[in-house]
Amino acid sequence: MTHPDLVHALRGGIVESFHRGSLAIVDAQGALLHAAGDVDRPVFSRSACKVLQALPLVESGAVETFGLTDEELAMACASHNGEALHASTAAATLAKAGLDEAALECGAHWPMGDAAIKALAREGREPSALHNNCSGKHAGFVCLGCMLARAQGQDARAFLRGYVQPEHPVMREVSAALQATTGADLASAPRGIDGCGIPTFGIALRRLALAFARVATGAGLSSGRAHAALRLRQAVARAPFFVAGTGRFDTRVMQRLGERVFCKVGAEGVYCAALPEQGLGVALKMDDGNNARAAEVVMAAVIEALVRLDDDEAQFMRGFSDATLRNWVGTEVGALRANDAFRQTLCSLQ
Amino acid sequence: MTHPDLVHALRGGIVESFHRGSLAIVDAQGALLHAAGDVDRPVFSRSACKVLQALPLVESGAVETFGLTDEELAMACASHNGEALHASTAAATLAKAGLDEAALECGAHWPMGDAAIKALAREGREPSALHNNCSGKHAGFVCLGCMLARAQGQDARAFLRGYVQPEHPVMREVSAALQATTGADLASAPRGIDGCGIPTFGIALRRLALAFARVATGAGLSSGRAHAALRLRQAVARAPFFVAGTGRFDTRVMQRLGERVFCKVGAEGVYCAALPEQGLGVALKMDDGNNARAAEVVMAAVIEALVRLDDDEAQFMRGFSDATLRNWVGTEVGALRANDAFRQTLCSLQ
Repeated sequence: MTHPDLVHALRGGIVESFHRGSLAIVDAQGALLHAAGDVDRPVFSRSACKVLQALPLVESGAVETFGLTDEELAMACASHNGEALHASTAAATLAKAGLDEAALECGAHWPMGDAAIKALAREGREPSALHNNCSGKHAGFVCLGCMLARAQGQDARAFLRGYVQPEHPVMREVSAALQATTGADLASAPRGIDGCGIPTFGIALRRLALAFARVATGAGLSSGRAHAALRLRQAVARAPFFVAGTGRFDTRVMQRLGERVFCKVGAEGVYCAALPEQGLGVALKMDDGNNARAAEVVMAAVIEALVRLDDDEAQFMRGFSDATLRNWVGTEVGALRANDAFRQTLCSLQ
Repeated sequence: MTHPDLVHALRGGIVESFHRGSLAIVDAQGALLHAAGDVDRPVFSRSACKVLQALPLVESGAVETFGLTDEELAMACASHNGEALHASTAAATLAKAGLDEAALECGAHWPMGDAAIKALAREGREPSALHNNCSGKHAGFVCLGCMLARAQGQDARAFLRGYVQPEHPVMREVSAALQATTGADLASAPRGIDGCGIPTFGIALRRLALAFARVATGAGLSSGRAHAALRLRQAVARAPFFVAGTGRFDTRVMQRLGERVFCKVGAEGVYCAALPEQGLGVALKMDDGNNARAAEVVMAAVIEALVRLDDDEAQFMRGFSDATLRNWVGTEVGALRANDAFRQTLCSLQ
């Protein structure tokens, strides 16, 4: 199936480049309100599903046991910039469990954003696993592992070794939460390895959107899991810097709209969102895997169309869904915008 | 027209993302040997056509007047990394014309590559116009402007002001070369503003490929222009670091294959190449504007299929057209490769 073009990059009055993709908007009963493209083919959910993967952490009682903060819970759902505050927060989480960055199995990489790269380089430093954009998620896995080890009377360090492997008890808990919320049969789903070493599963957008509708409403979840979903959404709404970072879409949108939107980027142009007031879940994937200038633009248009916004908020979102492109000397050279035809179909959902 | 998918990003045994695009391969008489997708719609050639824009510099006699080196001529065709040697070479070119970076109208930006960003940040420095990836091209425009000013007995500094504007004598010369080599009527073509401030024109891939077939062979060009094309190709083959930089596709391919290939990336997934031994020109554009993991993969597959390579060279190119993807801990997680169906159509051209 050829997916519709959802985003246009314009220059000199013509479409210079464009981005195709697929999108599902679903309610908590699984009813499909809107579909663009094929929403049944398997899509690796990548980091867009981190909030689902963090549910067992909250359900385990780790929040109370270790005294985890909103910032640390937001980090458990984060793909962060690797700014100093992100790295120190991941380190603080690990310290609460009596561990340090040696426990992390995510690998090290230079921070995602130019500003964080420059900051580290100016100090003459190299990145550690704490700067990995997934360090907060992995710190959460480590805390979950500590809870499981305690329950079994095992040494945490020994128990944790290999926690990124699919058959490790930590990853079994994480995958079980993903299976329960999406309703997908992960045993028969395509399985890949994510950037940070954990398994990632091919799941239909329709099912990912359902999971986020459940996160938005608690419907279809056990009361413990529904509470965990609410706790994570609230944590991110209170500490949105920690889910992404300076200048990033998720941080800026949730700083502005608070608990009305929970949105989360994933690698390869995947994006998911929970819209609590509407009781809806959203999942999308750009064919070409582009996040910053494709998936974000689509998500902005969806939020603009579906969430109740005042004029200033609508204008704020329009800055993402219809952005002016400028060159190095600051001259306006074009625009990056959600395709008008796509925008119109979204408006018909209101 | 829906363009064919030319590049697949694979993970966990399935296609995770893919890139559509269009491609023209043309001989110096304008015969179309191969077309994928629509090769007649206008495409902004962006930086892929810098060698065409550098022809008037060589034709003006500036090489002899200012004693320009191979490195400086390669820079005139370059989208470089902004490494120290790139910045100093652009400064040296300007100095030969009695000018400095204040003459450049391209604007400043942080270097393109992470390594160059870190190098500058570690020294506590900020980028100047010399670090702009187009600084060599602009230094070439400045030298051309000096030649024009001399011929008219005018002060170079005053003459140069506004050289990026379409109606300035420098840009008229540059656009005239683009029109003559492509055969496109630029007066009626879509016109945008490029990242560095100069005009960029919407030109059919078929015509861009023709221009590169002419650069490859000299056919259809005046003897002065044919000589200029050869001089530029030779300069880049002798100093390929200066056309891009450390780790970059154009630099690595031309370091390995020398004068047998002249290839050049442009913004928004545009790529052009001259294949002198085959007498062919190549022009391609990815729909989504992706260079590093889409346009380069397609160009690698084209070179692999059309250029006479020994086994080691073929394996070297295969490293670009069928690349292993690894995650942060070094685990193989997938592949980035030219679509098999596309590769087969290319093989039928041999």
